[in-house]
Amino acid sequence: MAERREYGGPAMDQVIGLCKRRGIIFQSSEIYNGVAGCFDYGPLGAEIKKNIKNSWWQDMVHRRSDIVGIDCSIIMHPDVWRASGHVDGFSDPLVDCKISKMRYRADQLYFARVAVSGEVIGYVSVLEDAGMQSAAENQAHELKRKLSKQGELEAIILRPYTEATPQEYALIPSPATGKPGSLTPPRAFNLMFQTHLGAVVDESSVAYLRPETAQGMFINFKNILNTYRIKPPFGIAQMGRSFRNEITPRNFIFRSREFEQMEMEFFIPDDADWQEWHQYWVNTRFEWLKGIGLRGHLLGLDVHRPEKLSHYSRACTDITFHYPFGVQELEGIAARGNFDLTQHQRASGKSLEYFDERQNRSYLPHVIEPAIGVDRLFLAVLCSAYHEEQVEGEVRVVLELHPRIAPVKAAVLPLVKNRPEVVNLARNLYEKLLKMHYVQYDKSGAIGRRYRRMDEIGTPYCITVDFDSLENGTFTVRDRDTMEQHRLTESEIIAFLAEKC
Amino acid sequence: MAERREYGGPAMDQVIGLCKRRGIIFQSSEIYNGVAGCFDYGPLGAEIKKNIKNSWWQDMVHRRSDIVGIDCSIIMHPDVWRASGHVDGFSDPLVDCKISKMRYRADQLYFARVAVSGEVIGYVSVLEDAGMQSAAENQAHELKRKLSKQGELEAIILRPYTEATPQEYALIPSPATGKPGSLTPPRAFNLMFQTHLGAVVDESSVAYLRPETAQGMFINFKNILNTYRIKPPFGIAQMGRSFRNEITPRNFIFRSREFEQMEMEFFIPDDADWQEWHQYWVNTRFEWLKGIGLRGHLLGLDVHRPEKLSHYSRACTDITFHYPFGVQELEGIAARGNFDLTQHQRASGKSLEYFDERQNRSYLPHVIEPAIGVDRLFLAVLCSAYHEEQVEGEVRVVLELHPRIAPVKAAVLPLVKNRPEVVNLARNLYEKLLKMHYVQYDKSGAIGRRYRRMDEIGTPYCITVDFDSLENGTFTVRDRDTMEQHRLTESEIIAFLAEKC
Repeated sequence: MAERREYGGPAMDQVIGLCKRRGIIFQSSEIYNGVAGCFDYGPLGAEIKKNIKNSWWQDMVHRRSDIVGIDCSIIMHPDVWRASGHVDGFSDPLVDCKISKMRYRADQLYFARVAVSGEVIGYVSVLEDAGMQSAAENQAHELKRKLSKQGELEAIILRPYTEATPQEYALIPSPATGKPGSLTPPRAFNLMFQTHLGAVVDESSVAYLRPETAQGMFINFKNILNTYRIKPPFGIAQMGRSFRNEITPRNFIFRSREFEQMEMEFFIPDDADWQEWHQYWVNTRFEWLKGIGLRGHLLGLDVHRPEKLSHYSRACTDITFHYPFGVQELEGIAARGNFDLTQHQRASGKSLEYFDERQNRSYLPHVIEPAIGVDRLFLAVLCSAYHEEQVEGEVRVVLELHPRIAPVKAAVLPLVKNRPEVVNLARNLYEKLLKMHYVQYDKSGAIGRRYRRMDEIGTPYCITVDFDSLENGTFTVRDRDTMEQHRLTESEIIAFLAEKC
Repeated sequence: MAERREYGGPAMDQVIGLCKRRGIIFQSSEIYNGVAGCFDYGPLGAEIKKNIKNSWWQDMVHRRSDIVGIDCSIIMHPDVWRASGHVDGFSDPLVDCKISKMRYRADQLYFARVAVSGEVIGYVSVLEDAGMQSAAENQAHELKRKLSKQGELEAIILRPYTEATPQEYALIPSPATGKPGSLTPPRAFNLMFQTHLGAVVDESSVAYLRPETAQGMFINFKNILNTYRIKPPFGIAQMGRSFRNEITPRNFIFRSREFEQMEMEFFIPDDADWQEWHQYWVNTRFEWLKGIGLRGHLLGLDVHRPEKLSHYSRACTDITFHYPFGVQELEGIAARGNFDLTQHQRASGKSLEYFDERQNRSYLPHVIEPAIGVDRLFLAVLCSAYHEEQVEGEVRVVLELHPRIAPVKAAVLPLVKNRPEVVNLARNLYEKLLKMHYVQYDKSGAIGRRYRRMDEIGTPYCITVDFDSLENGTFTVRDRDTMEQHRLTESEIIAFLAEKC
């Protein structure tokens, strides 16, 4: 629990436990023992995900006049990925254990030389992990004991396998077997999933599942200029599935093989102040993330140092989130210059320049790209919302979701289930509200239990129908976060929900 | 145009022309000369598609208390597709031309014996097409002429290549070369796209892109029962991409390789009246399709004859649509018995039975499945909405889309652009409406031209801001279909749009 206090959010097992208990997220193909790195969103999860996506689309596309949305196919022409650099460069370093057949990402496999009083007695290896330093030290002590070495064990300095020398490959033990000699040198492993279009399976029919949605915007840039009344500065936005054949998918839905992205390419004149636009998008996206309910103290900014940038990148700022497993990139805002349009213009042989009538000149716009993964945002939303507290001697688990994101907007609860007048009144109210919002009806169990069930899935408002409702036509509306209750009439409830959700 | 009059809808080239002109749909990867069977939806197309999907979800999930939605991964465990029968059985008959390397679907390749006065002089072949009969007859005449045969040409009776005898394979000319001898016998070609999970490319890592979303509901059936308060009769709904490696994708977005589906599995007690439920869903879906704007005279029902049903199917009714290229299946409503749950229960070794507390017994529910393709519904929506008429001596193209489906709900048009008061008033109204609906602002061109631009994309209401607006605070609201105009105040417009959209 030390880690938890340090970052101020829930532990990972609390969040995963809730997801399992309430059917928010399932492992994909669970009855067949699952597929690593793929997940299915259950009834509540599907609603939360949909609400996240709709909120993004509404705020990025519908409520702005300078951004349009598109929806491209996942399978694109392979030349797209040659031009973008993904065929040659989109890879992770992979290392195989020839004995166990296990595979590791070389940058997640750490090793250290073990020396006793100046003499190197061997190597240890561990997989990247919060406790890897002490695990490596334990291994080193064990090695010293086994080899009956006397003297002082020198400091264990872990380095990633990508930094091992060719001589060291043969000396580093495999994490699977504990013995050296079976690890291969690292090799580049392309993360794009391959398939074949049509009936012939050969080089000519290779196609890739897109590893990002962004290229769809670049290759349709000119199509949109030609058919839509818009001009730089303007953006093209897209949401949808992307696929990366991760060697080691991990951290629940944070790094999966199939995931969804929400990306936007904002095209600006080549002589515009790109730094100003970049800053604008960093600020806009940061505020948006807070606006849908992420806790400010868990958010951060990571400005990439110039020497860390890709050759075509002018600047990149990550909005980070403090997950239970550490601080990680949530959204990246990159200033990409005109790299992508240049690449596709060259590869396709088609001009992608914009002709500015006012200036009477053509140019390739520059691009600012805010890109976020839906699933990692989903996880950040849950981690921000998850809250446990003691209420009347019991643990109350509450998801403090923003009403826009909450899967169920309100629950209608008849106080008793054996009085037809109360039940009918409740049922009528439910049917009426259902036409406007996604609401639920729950008549079983003590009212306190029903509140808890709704708290746990983040329902902002519980509406209780009781005997007074029969008398005076008012209902109790309970606020999830404050647990305060007010009595409102039906029309007041309708207006209240319309305003809040 | 004969075909058009016959069915009463637009011609295919009118619809495709509009899609290209207004950037509704692009060929995928157009700048790289496209990918057959994949499409990108442009700004307006993405909105229409989203509106279709949201309407379905709203009416199938949100406004019902007996259906929940889920969102599964596209890559599932390969055992899912073994159990469902797709690995063994989901194939089309494929025939190769060994000379040209062309590939055809054997059931779309037709051939006929050519006989002159009782003597067989050869064979002709054509690809399935409205004009294939006359094309085959022309070929037969040509053959007779070339071989200098005298006598009477017998009737040309076309049959699909799947019905050819082994002796005939060698005699039927390839459509590519016009000469016999190069066509192979038909072979089963599995339509699932294959890929590999992880770094090893062998049999053990094969994975498929889902060819339908339905299996996600079956394999999560028990998960949902265990975590959600629901019991039969109830449904599980899902929307999302599916993939089929069609040999001959065709008819624009009607039959593509990547497409979206909206499917729902409705689980009923094994002793329920399944015929009644089946009929309920046929009626419900038919009315829904009319409700979002499909023209009744273009819709039809095709009740599958018992001998045409799959072995596990108890009944199947297609809702058909009369497309420009013929009457085709739009939505299928199938009574599938408990086939799918039985298969997955057997293959996974996990019980998928529902325990009915009231009856104190367990059973496998039966299933009614309404399944529709988003893209073919999109095309049906366009064909239903497309309308051309003469107005003041000019052709008016109007998309008579239902306001729920229309991409842009209203346009705000200042009558003049050189009077700042008018422009500011219009801009203010636009900004206000944009918070509630997806609306557009258009200030360029004569007002008549602007109306036409909006008619063509189906914008239901055009709001014109003129000098009177400055005086009395009213605006002209023009109805797309009747072209009638009324003056309304800002608050009247807000209420009007809220009601209509």
